[in-house]
Amino acid sequence: MKLFIKIITFFVIALCCTIEINAQKQLHNYVDPMIGSEGVGRVFIGPSCPYGMVKPSPDCTVNPNSGWLSIPKEVTGFSQVHVSGTGGGPKYGNIQIMPFSGALDKLDQTSHRAEENVKLGYYETVFKENQIKTEITTAEKVSFYRITYPKNASKGLKIDPGFFLGEEAIPDGREAQQFVGSQIEIVSDTEVRGYSRIRGGWNNGRAYTVYFWAVFDQPIAKYITWKDGKFYNNQSAQFDSGKKTAALFSFGNEGKQELNIKIGISFLSELKARNNIEVEIPHWNFNTVLANLENKWEELLSCITLSGDTSEEYKKMFYTGLYHTMIMPVDRTGENPLWTNDEPYYDDFYCIWDTFRTSSPLLTLIDTKRQVEIVNAMLNIYKREGYLPEGRSGNDNGRTQGGSNAEVVLADAFVKNLKGIDYELALQAMLKDATVPPGGNEEKEGRGGLLDYLKLGYVPYGTDRAGNRTIDYSYNDYNIATVAKGLNHMNLYNQYIKQADNWQNLWRSDYVNNGSTGFIMPKDASGKWLDDVVFGDSKIQKPTFRYTPVIIESPWYVCHWCVFFYEGNSWEYSLSIPHDVPELIRKSGGEVAFKKRLDTFFDTKLYNIANEPSFLTPCLYHWIGKPYLSSDRIRTIIKDNFNSSHEGLPGNDDSGAMSSWLAFHMMGLYPNAGQPYYLLNTPLIKEITLQLENGNYFKISAKKMNDKNRYIKSALLNGKQYNKAWILHEDLAKGGELILEMDSKPSAWGTTILPPTK
Amino acid sequence: MKLFIKIITFFVIALCCTIEINAQKQLHNYVDPMIGSEGVGRVFIGPSCPYGMVKPSPDCTVNPNSGWLSIPKEVTGFSQVHVSGTGGGPKYGNIQIMPFSGALDKLDQTSHRAEENVKLGYYETVFKENQIKTEITTAEKVSFYRITYPKNASKGLKIDPGFFLGEEAIPDGREAQQFVGSQIEIVSDTEVRGYSRIRGGWNNGRAYTVYFWAVFDQPIAKYITWKDGKFYNNQSAQFDSGKKTAALFSFGNEGKQELNIKIGISFLSELKARNNIEVEIPHWNFNTVLANLENKWEELLSCITLSGDTSEEYKKMFYTGLYHTMIMPVDRTGENPLWTNDEPYYDDFYCIWDTFRTSSPLLTLIDTKRQVEIVNAMLNIYKREGYLPEGRSGNDNGRTQGGSNAEVVLADAFVKNLKGIDYELALQAMLKDATVPPGGNEEKEGRGGLLDYLKLGYVPYGTDRAGNRTIDYSYNDYNIATVAKGLNHMNLYNQYIKQADNWQNLWRSDYVNNGSTGFIMPKDASGKWLDDVVFGDSKIQKPTFRYTPVIIESPWYVCHWCVFFYEGNSWEYSLSIPHDVPELIRKSGGEVAFKKRLDTFFDTKLYNIANEPSFLTPCLYHWIGKPYLSSDRIRTIIKDNFNSSHEGLPGNDDSGAMSSWLAFHMMGLYPNAGQPYYLLNTPLIKEITLQLENGNYFKISAKKMNDKNRYIKSALLNGKQYNKAWILHEDLAKGGELILEMDSKPSAWGTTILPPTK
Repeated sequence: MKLFIKIITFFVIALCCTIEINAQKQLHNYVDPMIGSEGVGRVFIGPSCPYGMVKPSPDCTVNPNSGWLSIPKEVTGFSQVHVSGTGGGPKYGNIQIMPFSGALDKLDQTSHRAEENVKLGYYETVFKENQIKTEITTAEKVSFYRITYPKNASKGLKIDPGFFLGEEAIPDGREAQQFVGSQIEIVSDTEVRGYSRIRGGWNNGRAYTVYFWAVFDQPIAKYITWKDGKFYNNQSAQFDSGKKTAALFSFGNEGKQELNIKIGISFLSELKARNNIEVEIPHWNFNTVLANLENKWEELLSCITLSGDTSEEYKKMFYTGLYHTMIMPVDRTGENPLWTNDEPYYDDFYCIWDTFRTSSPLLTLIDTKRQVEIVNAMLNIYKREGYLPEGRSGNDNGRTQGGSNAEVVLADAFVKNLKGIDYELALQAMLKDATVPPGGNEEKEGRGGLLDYLKLGYVPYGTDRAGNRTIDYSYNDYNIATVAKGLNHMNLYNQYIKQADNWQNLWRSDYVNNGSTGFIMPKDASGKWLDDVVFGDSKIQKPTFRYTPVIIESPWYVCHWCVFFYEGNSWEYSLSIPHDVPELIRKSGGEVAFKKRLDTFFDTKLYNIANEPSFLTPCLYHWIGKPYLSSDRIRTIIKDNFNSSHEGLPGNDDSGAMSSWLAFHMMGLYPNAGQPYYLLNTPLIKEITLQLENGNYFKISAKKMNDKNRYIKSALLNGKQYNKAWILHEDLAKGGELILEMDSKPSAWGTTILPPTK
Repeated sequence: MKLFIKIITFFVIALCCTIEINAQKQLHNYVDPMIGSEGVGRVFIGPSCPYGMVKPSPDCTVNPNSGWLSIPKEVTGFSQVHVSGTGGGPKYGNIQIMPFSGALDKLDQTSHRAEENVKLGYYETVFKENQIKTEITTAEKVSFYRITYPKNASKGLKIDPGFFLGEEAIPDGREAQQFVGSQIEIVSDTEVRGYSRIRGGWNNGRAYTVYFWAVFDQPIAKYITWKDGKFYNNQSAQFDSGKKTAALFSFGNEGKQELNIKIGISFLSELKARNNIEVEIPHWNFNTVLANLENKWEELLSCITLSGDTSEEYKKMFYTGLYHTMIMPVDRTGENPLWTNDEPYYDDFYCIWDTFRTSSPLLTLIDTKRQVEIVNAMLNIYKREGYLPEGRSGNDNGRTQGGSNAEVVLADAFVKNLKGIDYELALQAMLKDATVPPGGNEEKEGRGGLLDYLKLGYVPYGTDRAGNRTIDYSYNDYNIATVAKGLNHMNLYNQYIKQADNWQNLWRSDYVNNGSTGFIMPKDASGKWLDDVVFGDSKIQKPTFRYTPVIIESPWYVCHWCVFFYEGNSWEYSLSIPHDVPELIRKSGGEVAFKKRLDTFFDTKLYNIANEPSFLTPCLYHWIGKPYLSSDRIRTIIKDNFNSSHEGLPGNDDSGAMSSWLAFHMMGLYPNAGQPYYLLNTPLIKEITLQLENGNYFKISAKKMNDKNRYIKSALLNGKQYNKAWILHEDLAKGGELILEMDSKPSAWGTTILPPTK
């Protein structure tokens, strides 16, 4: 009887919970794909499954990275493949379609949006010129379009496999995509197939091919095909002769106003694209596709719940942050045209330089299974192609901006004990980066300038990006040491832990700038510090300019990729030593000087929130026993720079890098990627519960927190006093509760036991 | 009236010539594709246009490089892409078809040949088991099959895009081809489309895709498709899911016994393959296709005419030699899936290590236009992919065996003044090889071991193939110096002409073997000569074995690619210094010692006719003023090793390398590739007339030559005494006649003015 009562009680409670949950707004509704769409965020705004291969979205001219720009910019069409948050030259923008009304007599059907509505998994716009409404949702590899034409309007549609983003006339133009070939073929009165083959783009990749199969729910009444500037009336196919191809269709002007279109894509073949439709969307119900997509996201997002009183604004910022982190890299398992095996295949690492700091660690925490797949995909790329990816898209490695940062991702997986990864293979892959110069093209993979780095202990000035390459490589060497030690390869450990100090070889101890002493500065191969560095590459004159720690070498006369520090200055990079902050503090003149240095950095706007190199810097106060200063800085940075508006991200989101930085800090956690702990800060949300992959729950509660009570006075971990301003991943993984007692002034909490270090 | 008479006279003469030509056997009839098909020659025996992209031929198991083996070996089918004369792991063997009789119930339709007939452009066989006759001819990109079934037999056909040569179960097995994907789709009752995607093979290339479109002249009566071991009755397509696919067809057992099949292939798409059919064979006439092919060859072969009394045997050997030289590399202009531009595109450089010595120089002489295209294709590959090809197939660079021998090809074009080539770009491409280590994979392109070579002046033992890399690189540096000087880059010239001496750094002066002194021998990075070299890679024991100049390190315990000298020994390579024979003679102890050395080399079988490194060696007597000894050696070598039989080639033909060596020597000419002259020897043919691209004719006549009168007594060039045993390309290009007066004993002719040198 007692058991019976217990069971009843359980069901009653379960029922209540269910009712409560259903009554609540579902989490995916807090995702706003428009956050970070304007300004510099450059996020993808169209519908996407988690890690989804197809990403349909409007293209506003050929320039924007994600295709989209805000109204009133014109729309040239809707293509099926995009990236999110990237800078540099655009990639993808393949298989464009465009509804229109009128004669089948011109390829350009550019229109303007009268309105636009975007929510997770759903895009809608109505064109000004012709009142055509386009709605889009999507499955993993299949876009679903619902086009509604005005009554009695002629129902026109363009399919344009010749289109792509980032087109430039210059062959091999740096970062520009280049046309290779395309094809279109009308299969029946409801089916069209074809492909687009493009090379180049930001990562300077080899040619990739996006195949498509399009199906309509109304028969084609009339069509005309197009190739290289000419229309062809009686040809149902335009084969690939290295020229752009397209077709215009009319579905008449009678009958149903609504035209539904499924566009399957594939990187293998048109038939595989058709099969993707058959498998994923064997019906014509737009709402079912949308609901499936919402459910996938709901399941993922629900691994973190926030306290009920969290503001709508914070919920939107937080869940959109998680969302942005899970739309790239892209799951292309079963779609790899380069080799076939049973390993997962992911593409669009765009790029790891951006994502290793917070995106990978966030996936480890909220979607461990995927992170294991992503790591295994990286290792498989190494096995088949010789190098781990750093940047990779369109099925080809490239580019490298600084380090061989796959090392950080692998070390992070290792120290956080992710299962199902061959770490001996991982170590071998890391050692390839660290020992074998990639040669030929030093921007593609591996470590450019490696030979000098190994010989001199630093990359000398004259090699592109010598400064950040040196400090990144020394951190990557630390990552190798970490894994080597864990696998008990002590000889390797001893070698690489020594190389992890190489950043010190570019530390110019006596250099003073803005009241701080000691900076990473350019040094030539002979060991001479350089006050002045060369200006351009004139061979007759030898013009130079003064290099200082505040200079960002991006005026017209220094090429973007040839600088000493990539996208940053010495002030930023001289604080970017994630594995040995204590030594950095010592070299900077001790704790007082270091605090002053940090204060100067933040107070005089030397800090650049818009880019990744300084992601960890606001937390560096932890290492001088002042974690409350870290929290203050973070709170201010978020307040000043992040919000739920279209301009709510202060920099390129870079596949969710910026978004995951925010998500971590909103939880009061911050990872030091490649190392086994999180720094603890004042969260922005009172209660956060993480459901981990192992089934455990970890809850963080900030008691009595408000704008005033924003300092941690004391903490309890599972009921026991917890005096460290950091927590090991393994302690978090065990599950439990961390209760933070908040106060209105800084306390001694977390000031004595400093975070771990090399 | 006079003009009228002239016109009449012209027509009468023209008519007579035509009659005379038609009365003669046409030159292409002297081509016997079977020469070199058995034994080690490995030539492709099927029909092929000059540089033809499609190369249909039977496949006898998955092992042979060219697909074919002699009767009684079984035939598994006929695939559309093959290579000629190669060693190592097989490549291609794509889109296999196989006629059969009987039920559509098994994929394996292996049969045995009752007979087989092969002539230029034509293949025929009749199967023992079912009496089915298969005839094949081909256009550039389209195979044409005429299958004749026995009366009332069921007309079955297999199309198997899952098949390929060189299959091994091991993923990434060295030199093995690996399956990536395939697809098949029945389009109508007379059309099938699909593709095969394969990676690896000898050059370890990335995935390539061969698309096909097949058309039948009878309707399909019944079909069944197949995927991954299972048959599917009602599925007209099997999409690519990373598994092998195929289909069996029946054309019934009534009506026409003859089934004609056109199979277009393409590296771009199935529709392009269909277009190739429409453009090349818009009809069903087998004989027309064959006649077109014959005409193409006739036109090419007729650039060289031989005296009427030349033996059938010699005519067959000679014209087959020309033929073999012109079937690879393969013209894939308009079929490049990697980039699109107006440059020609050639693939299957397989590989330049083999072909630079005689194949390229022969093309320069007999098909200049093509050689210019090939060179421009090489430069375009450099521009788009970063390195010139050394080996390349399946649209990817790889492997390198020794030098970066594209340098020789470019220098050869330069010194022979080929027009329409950007030589500044060529120099830039050569300098890339010479200065930028390829890294990552040192077998793909560029120069492996480059950094040591630049630092030490040689490649130290421990780096694979240190010996031949060193001597090849020093020759390649000489090629760079040649072009640099010609373009007036004197700084570069000075640097590279010095590096051209680097072979001397491995010359161990006091080393004696078989009575000769001084050999290229292994040296370690510290400069120490090594008498013993390591045996295997055991880390605990350090076994070694004695390295001597006669050793060919290919026993089981030394990997084929890790040796000191690739496919040869020090005796061979120590005579392989094509740019500085005088210094080699000096180092070998002077003329007398050098003669003894050469005599020992040839008389004691140290010479290996079967491979390319010693191609020039029989001519080295020229440099000690004894050209008649060169001629004696060559005559003996040809007599002992070459003939018009199936085993008529003594080594892998390697895309015509062996064949072009023979063709040159039959004419009495021999090039020193990369240098502007030909050595003159006693020809095997009394009169040879070359028609050059510029319209000039050059005739070589050996007066009164017979088996006894085989020494050149004197020579006249355009009526003037000519006392050099070599002739500049530019003198030959001017046109004219070289008359050789023959005698029964050696003379002083050609003994005083020695061939040019560095």
